[in-house]
Formats: sequence, structure tokens, C-alpha cells
Amino acid sequence: MEVEFKAMLDDLDVLEKSLSDPAPIHKLRSHVENLATLSKCNPHRRSKVKELSSEVVDSNPYSRLMALQRMGIVDNYERIREFSVAIVGIGGVGSVAAEMLTRCGIGRLLLYDYDTVELANMNRLFFRPDQVGMTKTDAAVQTLAEINPDVVLESFTMNITTVQGFETFTSSLKNKSFCPSKEGTGVDLVLSCVDNYEARMAVNQACNELSQTWMESGVSEDAVSGHIQLLVPGETACFACAPPLVVASGIDERTLKREGVCAASLPTTMGVVAGLLVQNSLKFLLNFGEVSPYLGYNSLKDFFPTMQMRPNPQCSNVACLERQKEYMLAKPARDAAAKAKMEADALTAIDDGPLHDDNEWNISVVDDENEKDTTKASSSSDTLPEGLTRELPVADEYEKAIAIGPGETEEEDDLEDLKKQLEALNAA
Amino acid sequence: MEVEFKAMLDDLDVLEKSLSDPAPIHKLRSHVENLATLSKCNPHRRSKVKELSSEVVDSNPYSRLMALQRMGIVDNYERIREFSVAIVGIGGVGSVAAEMLTRCGIGRLLLYDYDTVELANMNRLFFRPDQVGMTKTDAAVQTLAEINPDVVLESFTMNITTVQGFETFTSSLKNKSFCPSKEGTGVDLVLSCVDNYEARMAVNQACNELSQTWMESGVSEDAVSGHIQLLVPGETACFACAPPLVVASGIDERTLKREGVCAASLPTTMGVVAGLLVQNSLKFLLNFGEVSPYLGYNSLKDFFPTMQMRPNPQCSNVACLERQKEYMLAKPARDAAAKAKMEADALTAIDDGPLHDDNEWNISVVDDENEKDTTKASSSSDTLPEGLTRELPVADEYEKAIAIGPGETEEEDDLEDLKKQLEALNAA
Repeated sequence: MEVEFKAMLDDLDVLEKSLSDPAPIHKLRSHVENLATLSKCNPHRRSKVKELSSEVVDSNPYSRLMALQRMGIVDNYERIREFSVAIVGIGGVGSVAAEMLTRCGIGRLLLYDYDTVELANMNRLFFRPDQVGMTKTDAAVQTLAEINPDVVLESFTMNITTVQGFETFTSSLKNKSFCPSKEGTGVDLVLSCVDNYEARMAVNQACNELSQTWMESGVSEDAVSGHIQLLVPGETACFACAPPLVVASGIDERTLKREGVCAASLPTTMGVVAGLLVQNSLKFLLNFGEVSPYLGYNSLKDFFPTMQMRPNPQCSNVACLERQKEYMLAKPARDAAAKAKMEADALTAIDDGPLHDDNEWNISVVDDENEKDTTKASSSSDTLPEGLTRELPVADEYEKAIAIGPGETEEEDDLEDLKKQLEALNAA
Repeated sequence: MEVEFKAMLDDLDVLEKSLSDPAPIHKLRSHVENLATLSKCNPHRRSKVKELSSEVVDSNPYSRLMALQRMGIVDNYERIREFSVAIVGIGGVGSVAAEMLTRCGIGRLLLYDYDTVELANMNRLFFRPDQVGMTKTDAAVQTLAEINPDVVLESFTMNITTVQGFETFTSSLKNKSFCPSKEGTGVDLVLSCVDNYEARMAVNQACNELSQTWMESGVSEDAVSGHIQLLVPGETACFACAPPLVVASGIDERTLKREGVCAASLPTTMGVVAGLLVQNSLKFLLNFGEVSPYLGYNSLKDFFPTMQMRPNPQCSNVACLERQKEYMLAKPARDAAAKAKMEADALTAIDDGPLHDDNEWNISVVDDENEKDTTKASSSSDTLPEGLTRELPVADEYEKAIAIGPGETEEEDDLEDLKKQLEALNAA
């Protein structure tokens, strides 16, 4: 559009010189200038942020994330900007995972997909109808860059299961230009969000070869269950250690799906799986909570099974067997390091005073060993700050009542009380 | 912009009449027409769909949802277009819940919020930086209408906790113009996605008064846990039946939060809670799976507690006590209806033949009562369709091995085999 505006203004200049009265030209020129302004003001993008600030103002896009430090959940949230995460498959799960990491302010995202956006994808979050026909990677970069310009986005529009695609995939994972000091590969985590066996095996192969930790995710064809899984080469089962019982052989698995039949999908199941996947990733990267080795989601019964899978010593994947051997060889060093850390932690614990000498929430820690202190602490915590009242009687009153002893009279009185209350209710 | 284009074309008409040579005007006019076309082509919206189709083509936005019928999950997915859902609070959970329901093709959404979009909200899904300054309801309608023009959107930019706001809220829930034949209120479900006690109590009050089923949701201030809860007035506990232990009294609870302190939030936790909430809503509306009465989410340990809460006969909410009485009075009729249904179901079960006489997935159902059939069925299922191979030996081979009997020789041979395999592996 800018080119058109420039051309119009030039034409108006020429025309003005040939006219005796310049007034109509001035009017036209102001129209053009108005239009140029209107066309520019939308979309409004936010400017980049140099350093994450925890300042609590409406204009700070990171205030609610930096609050995780104040709340004691994460030690150093700012580290998120150093991390690179690769997401393979930008569909119903991968696109939402990418958006979540982008909104969390991840340092760098690598996106892999070869598909294009269709109207048939609109029953899942993320893509918009106006992006139909774009490649999923291009559409994702368009949306994500607008949401958070601080994230470095690299997109790879290709199929990682082809020979050339696989090579590009592994070499992109090895590229360390974003954070040259990093150990291992150039990425901190690979998330597999693909929908077929072949692609999962390709991610598995690359990660086994590179000794790269990754997480796998999946959603069932009937749209009502899913899972996430952590895979650490050599330490946990790889994808080939316990493969699906039945797989395609010799022919492309996509042609196995009969014409006119398609898998069901729901934005809910995919959103939950993406949320669990990125939550597990944040716990892994930022070192908080417990990273789940496997977490299932059965939405019909709201059942969330967990399990742990050790590597299969007869795994068909040669690279997996190599990683298993390395892991076993490193066991003595790992045990020694763990022991040293435990001893150091124990020493620090003795040296330290109370964890929170003073805290903002007026929470007092009760020492079990000192009965007197307990009583004092609990009675002082009964006094609520101004502006707060209790909706239910305090627990102490209940304890006092039962502390009277097992005397029958007291209990009968309670029953009488209850009966009276019930009668009063019925009468009301 | 359209007004500006129209004005320019009019001015050019006037100018053309005063000139001897019309060529420069023609050139200018073609520029204006180009610009008008460019400004219109984006954003591209999809047209409305009259009836949900299950046709499997890329251009069908409902194909993956209608597939839920084919997969046997939902009996009649099309019913979704008859339902109205009210969402109170269009923040980190409510906005994502609204988007999920919109993408599922819900009939009508009622949105309530009084807040505006800020950059500080960008760490959660849904709102975009270019919407900063808009009311959350306006921004939501803008985004949702673009995603799915089939959904009827009604937005209420107001605070439901004020006297007037509460009245508008209840009368909007009672409005039955969308589906006049519907029993009860004009909505099928209310979702509470608010972040404070006062607003929850307002939703609770309205739903108790109207005998309206609703679901409550919440996310903790430290951003790492949340919950959803189903509330059926009279049948389950209402929000006042088991209130939080400490609440604000006399003063506005927002002023209790000290300056410079804000709650943490994560797109992951909020996305998971929104997903669980809408999944439970879909199960409730479309009658599949088990609707959860309460589901917690502890993300640090990936723990999902469930529980059931019966109403408190001493609840402080008068409308709740009325609903409880009604529920008790209707018990005999309810029991009789349940018994009649069970008997009818039992009769139908006898009349019916096999559930799926022929099925597309070549799954054969094994009859426990007939041993011969069992053997036949299991051996016929051993033969996989063309293009499929087994990654692991079939279970039958394992069974055959142990079926030989408890003879020691056989077992020793197995051990010998294993030893040989291990040696071969070590030698490799």
C-alpha cells in the first residue's frame, strides 16, 4: 500500500503545477495522508523489552511471570531468555505449546512443519481463518512475532522424515550460535507434537544420536485422551524401547487411513495436553516442582495415569543402546556427585537460620518440638489482620470441644444442639 | 477508511469536469481503486455455515468435530448449536474457555467482564498486544467472531457485583429468545472464571435463585494450581456451603492486596484449567463420559484430586436452602424415573443384537461364554491387514510358552536362551 500512496502524492504534485487553483489538490493530498495514517496504525505491535522487569504496572508484559520468583516458585525466572526449544509439528498441540512458550518469554523457538493451514484445523486453538493457505510455520511466526517480539523465531518448512529433512533437522539442533557457551546441542529441549509413528521415530533417532533430552506428546484418534512423556537418552525408555504394538510396514501409514475417514479432535484435549507438556517443560528448564516422566490424560473419566519407563536393553535402536552404555558407565561419578551434593546441602541447612525470618504474608512456622511455642503461635495467628473475618469457626474451637474428653454428657449436648438447629431450619 | 475513499472519488469527479485533459484524473482514480481493494482483502473471514457437515474435506471447519459421532464418543454432535453458555470473567481462563467453545461451534456465548486488556495480560493465551486498551468483552468478540462467525456472541461490559450489574446479569440469563422451547433459564450452563470471592458469591447467588447449573474455576495466586467444580443448586454444595476460611469483610478485597504486589500467572496452568472446564462442559452438554463434580490440578506434582461435596444443610444462602428442600421433595419421583429407565434399558439390551454387527476397524468382540469362539476370534485377529506388522511378538506366543506347564526343563531352557542373548549383546 505504501507504494500506492507515494505514487499518488507524486501524481498530485505534477497536477498541481498545471492548475491555476491549487485548492482541490490540497484537499486530495490531505485525504491521501489520512489514509496512509489509517493504514499504518493497525496492527499495533509492542516494542521489544531489553530486560525482564518485575515492576507491577499494567504495561509490563512480564510482571505476572516475574511474580513467580516473589511467590517462591522459581529461583531465577530471567533464565528463560537463555533457553532454546525446538517444536516438531505445529498442529493442534504444537501451535498452542509454541504460543505458551512465546508468552512465557522463552529465548528462542525452532518450529518444524511442512503442512498448510486449512479450515478443517479451525476446531483447535491458535490458527485463524484468515491464515488458511499459509504454511503452518509462516502463520505461526506471523502470530507469535506479534504476541511477543522478544522471542527469536526460526521456522523450518519441511518434512523431517525425508533424508534431506532429517539432515537439516539434526544440523539445526546442533547450531549453537544463539548461546555458544551451552553444553551439548544448541537446544535445551525438543518437543515432539507430531501425529504419526514415522515422525516420532525420526525425532527419536535424532535425539538418541545427539543425546538430546526431549518430550513426546500425543492425542488419541477419538480426541478424548492424550499423554506426555519425558525421554532422556540412555536414562529412560526411548520411543523405540516400547513401540506401539502394531505399525505400518512397507507402505505409507497415511494411505492406511481410508478415504472419507478422519480422526476426531477437540480444542479442549489438545489444549490440556499442550498445557501439561509446556508446564513439564518449564519445570524441567527452570528447575521447580517434579518433572513427570509420563502423564496420561483420560478425559472421559478425568483420570491421569503416571508411570516410569526404564530403557529396554534389547531396544532396536543402536544409538539408544550406546546411550544406555554411557549412562551405566557414568553411574559411579553420578552417585559420587549426588552424595557430595547431599552432604553440602546438609551443611548449609545447619548454617542457615530460619528460611523466612520475616515474611510478607504473616505466616508463622510452628516448631513441633516446643509445645509452648505451638500454643503461642497458633493463638497469635487467630488474630486476623484488619478487614478479614472468619467464615467458619476456627479449628481450635472444634479441638477444644473434643478435648473435653469422651464424657457421654458432652456428646449428648452436641446432639441436642444439632437437633434444635435442624428444627429451627425446618420451622424457617 | 471507506468514507475517505468515497470522498476522494467524489472530489476527483468534480476536478475532472474543470480540466481539459482527463488523463491525470483517470490515473489517480485507478490508484484509489487499487487502495480500496487492498484495504478490503485483509482480514479474510470465512462465511457462515448453515448446517454442520461431517464431510471430510479441508474446507469443512466441523469435520473433526463431527468425527466424534463416527468414533462413537458423542451421539448427536449437532445439538451443540442449540446450547447457550454464559462466561463470567473473560481473563486468563474465561477467554480461553470462550475460544474453545467458539471453535467447537457452540450456539451462543454470553460474555461478562468490565476490565480492559493490558500488556500485563500478555503472559496468558488469547489477547493480543494490538488489543491493549480495548475492553476485554470487545476484544473477545472481535477475535471470536473472526474465528467462527456461526456463534451468536452477546457481550456485557459491566460488573456483576454491583446492584444494577447483578440485575442485568440475572435478566440476561433468563432471556429465552435464542431457544424459546428450552426449559428453565435461557442458558444451559454458566461458567465462572472470575478471580475474586465477591464475584463468585454473585454468580452463586444468581444461580441459586434461578436454579441454574454452573461450573466454577480458579487458579492459585502462585500460578501453579487450579480447580474446576460443578454446582447443581440443591443437589451439590453451593459456593456458600463451604466458603473459603478467610474472606474480606467491610472493605474491598482488592485494597487488601498491597501496592506493588501482584499474583503470578502462567499460560500453562490457565490453559489446562480452561481445557478441563470446557471438557467437563462438553461432557455435561453433549452427554458423554463422566462429568466431574470437582477436579483439582496441582502442577508441581501433577496431582489431580477429585471429590464430591453435598450441600450444607446450614448453608448461609437462603436460596440454596430452598433448592435443597426442593431437591429432597423431588426424591421419590427421581427414584421412580431412574428405576423405570433401568428396566427399560434392560429390556432394550435383551432385544438388541450385537452392538456393532460389522465395524470398520475389524475389531471382533470375544464372547466369554463360548470357549471355542474365543480361540477362533483370537486366532483370526492374529492375521493383520496388509501393510501392518507386529513390532513385538504376539501375546499368544508368550501364553503358549507358559501353557506348556510348570516343567523345570522348559524354564531352564528359557533362562539359557536369555543368557545367550545377553552374551551376544555384550559381545556386540
